[in-house]
Amino acid sequence: MTVPAGERLYADHVLNGWLTSVGLGVEYTRAAGNTLYLNENGVEVPVLDHICGFGSLIFGHHDPEIVAFAKECLDRQVPVFAQLSVQSPTSEIAAKLNSIVRRETGDERAYSAVFANTGAEAIEICLKHAELERQERISALVAEIEANIDKARAAVRAGTVDRIEVTGPADGLPHDVTEFDALIAAVERRNAEVTAGRPVFLALTHAFHGKLAASVQLTHSPQWRAPFTALASTVRFLDPERPEAIRPAVNELRQILLDIELAGGVARMVARDFPAVGAFFVEPVQGANGMRPLSEHLVREIRAACDALGCPLVVDEIHSGMGRTGAFLASSHLGLRGDYYTLGKSLGGGITKASVALFSQDRFRPAFEVIHSSTFAKDGLSTAIAAKVLDMLEADDGLAYRTAAERGRRLRAMLDKVAADFPAVVTAVNGIGLMLGMEFADQARNGSEVIAEKARAGGLGHTLAGYVLRVHRVRLLPVGPSTNSVRFEPSIRLTDDEITQTEAALRDICSILRDQDGERLVTVA
Amino acid sequence: MTVPAGERLYADHVLNGWLTSVGLGVEYTRAAGNTLYLNENGVEVPVLDHICGFGSLIFGHHDPEIVAFAKECLDRQVPVFAQLSVQSPTSEIAAKLNSIVRRETGDERAYSAVFANTGAEAIEICLKHAELERQERISALVAEIEANIDKARAAVRAGTVDRIEVTGPADGLPHDVTEFDALIAAVERRNAEVTAGRPVFLALTHAFHGKLAASVQLTHSPQWRAPFTALASTVRFLDPERPEAIRPAVNELRQILLDIELAGGVARMVARDFPAVGAFFVEPVQGANGMRPLSEHLVREIRAACDALGCPLVVDEIHSGMGRTGAFLASSHLGLRGDYYTLGKSLGGGITKASVALFSQDRFRPAFEVIHSSTFAKDGLSTAIAAKVLDMLEADDGLAYRTAAERGRRLRAMLDKVAADFPAVVTAVNGIGLMLGMEFADQARNGSEVIAEKARAGGLGHTLAGYVLRVHRVRLLPVGPSTNSVRFEPSIRLTDDEITQTEAALRDICSILRDQDGERLVTVA
Repeated sequence: MTVPAGERLYADHVLNGWLTSVGLGVEYTRAAGNTLYLNENGVEVPVLDHICGFGSLIFGHHDPEIVAFAKECLDRQVPVFAQLSVQSPTSEIAAKLNSIVRRETGDERAYSAVFANTGAEAIEICLKHAELERQERISALVAEIEANIDKARAAVRAGTVDRIEVTGPADGLPHDVTEFDALIAAVERRNAEVTAGRPVFLALTHAFHGKLAASVQLTHSPQWRAPFTALASTVRFLDPERPEAIRPAVNELRQILLDIELAGGVARMVARDFPAVGAFFVEPVQGANGMRPLSEHLVREIRAACDALGCPLVVDEIHSGMGRTGAFLASSHLGLRGDYYTLGKSLGGGITKASVALFSQDRFRPAFEVIHSSTFAKDGLSTAIAAKVLDMLEADDGLAYRTAAERGRRLRAMLDKVAADFPAVVTAVNGIGLMLGMEFADQARNGSEVIAEKARAGGLGHTLAGYVLRVHRVRLLPVGPSTNSVRFEPSIRLTDDEITQTEAALRDICSILRDQDGERLVTVA
Repeated sequence: MTVPAGERLYADHVLNGWLTSVGLGVEYTRAAGNTLYLNENGVEVPVLDHICGFGSLIFGHHDPEIVAFAKECLDRQVPVFAQLSVQSPTSEIAAKLNSIVRRETGDERAYSAVFANTGAEAIEICLKHAELERQERISALVAEIEANIDKARAAVRAGTVDRIEVTGPADGLPHDVTEFDALIAAVERRNAEVTAGRPVFLALTHAFHGKLAASVQLTHSPQWRAPFTALASTVRFLDPERPEAIRPAVNELRQILLDIELAGGVARMVARDFPAVGAFFVEPVQGANGMRPLSEHLVREIRAACDALGCPLVVDEIHSGMGRTGAFLASSHLGLRGDYYTLGKSLGGGITKASVALFSQDRFRPAFEVIHSSTFAKDGLSTAIAAKVLDMLEADDGLAYRTAAERGRRLRAMLDKVAADFPAVVTAVNGIGLMLGMEFADQARNGSEVIAEKARAGGLGHTLAGYVLRVHRVRLLPVGPSTNSVRFEPSIRLTDDEITQTEAALRDICSILRDQDGERLVTVA
């Protein structure tokens, strides 16, 4: 279970040390369904896995149907890498996704699919596509303004302009204009400054949208984001608890270009909306915010903000999609309609890596298919499996979704019962379907100095996870960067017995916190 | 072989249309070794694949040993996703890589490994780590300057400073200083401006380092990069043909912070080097530059530039590494020593997706293991296969490397012979081992209007590829964004017969170009 000292110096040295210090430094040797197996003194010990690849295993570890299909693909020698040839699984998957999204949203819009390898890559693709859209809008707007200026200049030269009006939007420009050319030069200077600026992206506080150099900017937690803010675009974070603050924040971000309008002998300076905002990224259920779904009010305000800005609303379903919440898209529960959608995790069937971004075809720039590419994306194995996974989700009239909903209700009922029995310990149970979180009251002043010290140092959640792993053979982890919480995102194969096993583990840790029994928490069995 | 019209509207619509227009719109149905199979009227047609997943298949499509091992992993139910547990394959792979790199470079430095899923992700990780290094250097420098300023201020207050000297570096600050506090305020203002700036990264013209939002900035081709430059850090591209221009370019990028040095009653303003440059990224063999290796002179200048700047030199071996050039690292041939290395492509064995970044341990920030993460990275299947691939490369005292070198020499001898026989058509053969490129003279004025027109439109390379696919059943593609070239990066299983088949195809297209026989090129057999 441990790695020879000499070898672990080269990878995960600090990580493994920290895992060991909180009781999570174990190595799993086998996985099936909701179970990961440890090997202790030659004996295989089952551990109930509530993490399931951070929600990547809607059908569990090594689902027999998926594994059999993967082996069949290998036996058939399905081409894995054949870039720049026709790869029909992408069209097949995209067609399936269109039909599913159409059914769930009740919306007739068609979506174009662009494939990637990981959730973070799907987000990066959305960043790139949003910027491509924005640059094309800017080019069109600038061309229009240039044409208007040329027209006005010609009219001034021809003597058909009686009056030049400089009004509101021209702040900072001379109001007393005698020289038309000087005015135009000032307008063009100002417009050039605005168009040269970098885009701003919007996201919500607590957001998690990946950790690559640009996507990490959209991930709120400062411990993951702060060192890297100079690497990429600025992100403005808005508080999901304050939907009413979104409109004013968005108004503040508005920028204009100056244009000249010619009408009835008057050349009038007018303001044109400039697309300063690239996109608004949201998760329907905020994984790193205790699995909280967005409120109806917030959803309305976000949609209105995007419509006002003309920017795409990116609904990030990497964590919440693929049936986990009892619908294919968690956003379906919330009436949230996106312009782009991202999917990942379970799309790869738990053994391969695939993600996809969907772009509403009224916004999609077809050139993107040629400008963007990836050696590993659209590979024949992961796309074959992704198509299979979609078929499995849709089989029997959506039995998998109904199962996720039913299992989720059962699991949640247990969590709610535990919460009710430990009101001083459990502050909230959040989530939808099989994407649930339980939050504990801050334990920084727990009467047990062991507990209080761990809470203050930020390691309590992981220590609790280490305890239930050791004592109850249940694998839990905190939610996102929070430390006073645990997450539940098992597969739809979750059994009643497994829920009972989980309940015992939770009642035990709630008792430890309530009874301020730090000794029990850290004593190795 | 074609996709139903209704379905292909949702994915790769433009791409597949373009592939069809150049004769590449085929779908492969099976793959083994260096062969992709088409299905034409129920008959399986073998196609010799010189692309091999853009160099991802050092052992060919569906290598039997790798596939058997993958199936064995599935049968053993090896945990694929078990994040935040000890995953010993990462340590095992890292140890293997350290021993290989140590042998090849003759350098005792140890490297820490961070895993990712794709080549582009490995580059993003390097960007992030370089920025983490830079931020820590900035923080240390700023703290030191603040302490020096406090010390000088105290000395001025205590009356132990006779003279304040403002010299060279203080350009823009008042030289006639009577007020010490005003000077310090000006210094601090200027330092704050410099530290708030974004880093600059260095790369070479023709570079290819991926296409995610930040990594695409390092990829030179404007058609892939230009729309996205507002999304992330600025990259300065340096010309690999002008090694002598690197030193002056680097000097131009130097920035300083101002500091106060106290000595013998004199408070003197001094300049401190500021780490404005994040990193220098280079590929030992530039795939998108006709497979040209860097020159010895260039390698020396790049290393000297990084040493002068104190920034890491990132040797991107995603395309060239894993044995393709006859050594594990292509940089070994060139005497190029990196501070970071990236590997990908064949690391996943042609069926899974894995990449890794190596960081010299004297630069590695261990906190990075905890700050950075990815749901799919370090998965149990791709890491098991990566370890297996490394063992296969190292087996029999490096037989795979020797085979790559020997097959590469044989292939190259054929290419050189063809080039010699068509001196007006072939302008260059470049590359090392099994990473080769052939360049054709510009055909924009070819006597055949068909050829000239395709050359001018930028589609000649792909049309040539479509022709050899149709007529010779050989799969070739242009090199990078260039259109007058073809690339060769087959597996080490390449046979003499396959080289002969390739020679016939190349002699045919060279004759077509020489004989200005555009009709033959576009006539469907």
